[in-house]
Amino acid sequence: MGKVYLVGAGPGAPDLLTLRAAEILKRADIVFHDALVHPQTLDLAARADKIAVGKRSGSHSTAQKFINKRLVDAARDHRVVVRLKGGDPTLFGRAQEEIDALRAAGIDFEIVPGVTAATAASAELGVSLTRRGFARHVVFVTPRAAKGEPENDWATSVLAADTAVIYMGAGLADAISAELIRSGKPKDTPLALVESATFFERRVLLGTLADLPELARRAGSGPTVVLLGAVLKAAIAKPAAVAVEDIEALLRQA
Amino acid sequence: MGKVYLVGAGPGAPDLLTLRAAEILKRADIVFHDALVHPQTLDLAARADKIAVGKRSGSHSTAQKFINKRLVDAARDHRVVVRLKGGDPTLFGRAQEEIDALRAAGIDFEIVPGVTAATAASAELGVSLTRRGFARHVVFVTPRAAKGEPENDWATSVLAADTAVIYMGAGLADAISAELIRSGKPKDTPLALVESATFFERRVLLGTLADLPELARRAGSGPTVVLLGAVLKAAIAKPAAVAVEDIEALLRQA
Repeated sequence: MGKVYLVGAGPGAPDLLTLRAAEILKRADIVFHDALVHPQTLDLAARADKIAVGKRSGSHSTAQKFINKRLVDAARDHRVVVRLKGGDPTLFGRAQEEIDALRAAGIDFEIVPGVTAATAASAELGVSLTRRGFARHVVFVTPRAAKGEPENDWATSVLAADTAVIYMGAGLADAISAELIRSGKPKDTPLALVESATFFERRVLLGTLADLPELARRAGSGPTVVLLGAVLKAAIAKPAAVAVEDIEALLRQA
Repeated sequence: MGKVYLVGAGPGAPDLLTLRAAEILKRADIVFHDALVHPQTLDLAARADKIAVGKRSGSHSTAQKFINKRLVDAARDHRVVVRLKGGDPTLFGRAQEEIDALRAAGIDFEIVPGVTAATAASAELGVSLTRRGFARHVVFVTPRAAKGEPENDWATSVLAADTAVIYMGAGLADAISAELIRSGKPKDTPLALVESATFFERRVLLGTLADLPELARRAGSGPTVVLLGAVLKAAIAKPAAVAVEDIEALLRQA
């Protein structure tokens, strides 16, 4: 019986992977990966079969139950099985369903945390999410409800937190802005929309909560996070991060 | 004029550093680091002067204003200046004060995000913080107020979020538990206290919100995070992560 590693691939740029994740990928026999994982990150798993199972892979999503089953099956045939997820596996990644399936099948697993999109975005914006004197809490939230989930408590969590980072809000900008303003969040709350954080093709758009629909129309189709709260007033539009051309060279050099 | 890198050292284990952070440390001329950064992480900055400025270094903390000034001064004398912070620099790290000082002095800076303690802890607990159907939001919060900060809104943010991770709550367990129960959080809310996440000497204690004072008494003096919410019901007490003995060997191998 093999072991399954649920590994965070980080926010996008291949050099924002952890050393531990890189080392496990090098040992991997088989990798099941989200569609948005960088090709250079996948290249680290030189001797592994690589199977895209993310929602953006191909024309339709791979059903979660099918992914769970494939992980269990793979652990019966391989020593090192990697489930590579964008960002951190324990934030909005449906990891629990995979963990539950592995535990039910008696398969050993380990989670390798990663850098999540929220702090990758704040790094690019040059701001702290918890600026002293302004913010003692930050909520990470998605307005997307799963089947059977309580309908509309997401806005409450944003209102109660000094800073909020909204994941998976693409296509919902109008509804997010309207719902938050209706709930009492000031229209002029500083806001940033960061698309494809840490990727070459990233885009940073600054404005206020009322501007969100317009900003979303100016953004592309990459994954986005929306950050809002007083701390965003200090956000810088020019991304500061340096992109890396050749991850293999960097690894050799290290 | 040099450049200042505000770098996340990750939650503790040296192999949970990002590749980018490792590469910048190797190029560093001078490193100002928090006290809790792992010695093996500091060893990566082979040719740099290393200066501990964290609150746990020595017998008293280095004043923030003094750290700001040293960063600005260092950028005038060195090409690559690193401010190495535990976890992620934009979460509870007072980065904004340093950024503001650097911007005021016209010094170029870049933030390198890191893995934060919350997701390092959830990885060790083997749970998702946002289990589908249970949690659409997670708040990261500290009950410690800065001077002049509004007194007691932290509990509200916890009550409004499905999952909460409390940072820097050490020594405040009794007050945290009492305040949350008083505010209406159920006593039997599942809870985990993780001390020194990802370090060798880590400790994982499971219970409920009502048990927090007792769990805190059983914990040691390492840095802790407290996680609470329905998702913690699935937490596993046995940490799964593998510790790395020799980070240099791992880097050579990569």
